Amino acid sequence: MNQAIEGTASTEVDFEELVARTKRLTNFMPEHEAVLLKVGDAIKPHLGAVTDAFYTVLQTIPKAEPFLEGRIDMLRQTHQQWLESLFSGPFDVDYARKMYHVGMVHVKVKLPVEFMQGAASLIMSELIKLVTRMCREDAAKLGLILTAINGVIGYSISVMQESYQASSLAEELEKFLAITGMSRALFNNLALAYNADE
Amino acid sequence: MNQAIEGTASTEVDFEELVARTKRLTNFMPEHEAVLLKVGDAIKPHLGAVTDAFYTVLQTIPKAEPFLEGRIDMLRQTHQQWLESLFSGPFDVDYARKMYHVGMVHVKVKLPVEFMQGAASLIMSELIKLVTRMCREDAAKLGLILTAINGVIGYSISVMQESYQASSLAEELEKFLAITGMSRALFNNLALAYNADE
Repeated sequence: MNQAIEGTASTEVDFEELVARTKRLTNFMPEHEAVLLKVGDAIKPHLGAVTDAFYTVLQTIPKAEPFLEGRIDMLRQTHQQWLESLFSGPFDVDYARKMYHVGMVHVKVKLPVEFMQGAASLIMSELIKLVTRMCREDAAKLGLILTAINGVIGYSISVMQESYQASSLAEELEKFLAITGMSRALFNNLALAYNADE
Repeated sequence: MNQAIEGTASTEVDFEELVARTKRLTNFMPEHEAVLLKVGDAIKPHLGAVTDAFYTVLQTIPKAEPFLEGRIDMLRQTHQQWLESLFSGPFDVDYARKMYHVGMVHVKVKLPVEFMQGAASLIMSELIKLVTRMCREDAAKLGLILTAINGVIGYSISVMQESYQASSLAEELEKFLAITGMSRALFNNLALAYNADE
């Protein structure tokens, strides 16, 4: 129980394990990484348009408004850079650390959880459209590229969601302590006693 | 703050709003629903194989073991039925209620959060493979079907994750109360006073 209640600081995360497990869980294999690097040059010039399409949809969703207001240009730029990195690699421990950090930041700015899956779906949808245009004569190639893109998006979002979950549980403990005026030391002692009793 | 700390019981959810917002957020449009129903007859006979491939990967992941042990046949059956429903519809409020319930159950059985995105990625990956085989001569049709599948998976998983998040925060409050021996009434009063102070 303690594990869940205390959340997981990123310093405690075994990133090697996280990377290996998440890549298997999202079917993001070395051959897919190779495909992404190979098609990168052809795809990158279109990622500005993919980013535009993404923010165009977000701007129609009232719940997204407070996160966009006054900083859409900055967000757009960061988003496009991230999209470009999906076709550059490497998708290693350093990359996973960055995605983990993004999940923590999303909790800090109180971004509702569904916007992460929403982003994954919208981006995939735009990239399906783009790659279908690029591979009009070659369905097999289209399937291969989309499998690779599905892998890298799933891998990135999964790491982000895992840290979002850990951070939001940790934040709940902070809120509870603030509301009750209880010290962390007292709470930890009570938790130890409670767990020993179970 | 209260909202987050108290979580959201499914009775308080405005499902009409949830459905409309999530469909827009995951680009799951009426024309995509129509595509899914149209290709359903061709795809459904292959969903047993997709389910098998999914559980084959899960079985290689140690963290998944406790959730599979002794009930893999039952899970496989439920999973295949759900996959079939993705090509049957309707994807209305009743469907969203079911997905919302699944998210709550996932918290109850302590399924780690990353398995939802993992499932989405693995299933999409298998369906890309399947539909690519089916549309070998028609990249445009392949792109259209995959856009629809991407939409319905994103919609389903997003609703599930939104309820998983609400349920896990609500569960944290239960844990705090159990550990500290504090009554819910006392906590609610403290929270009101704390919020009034802010």
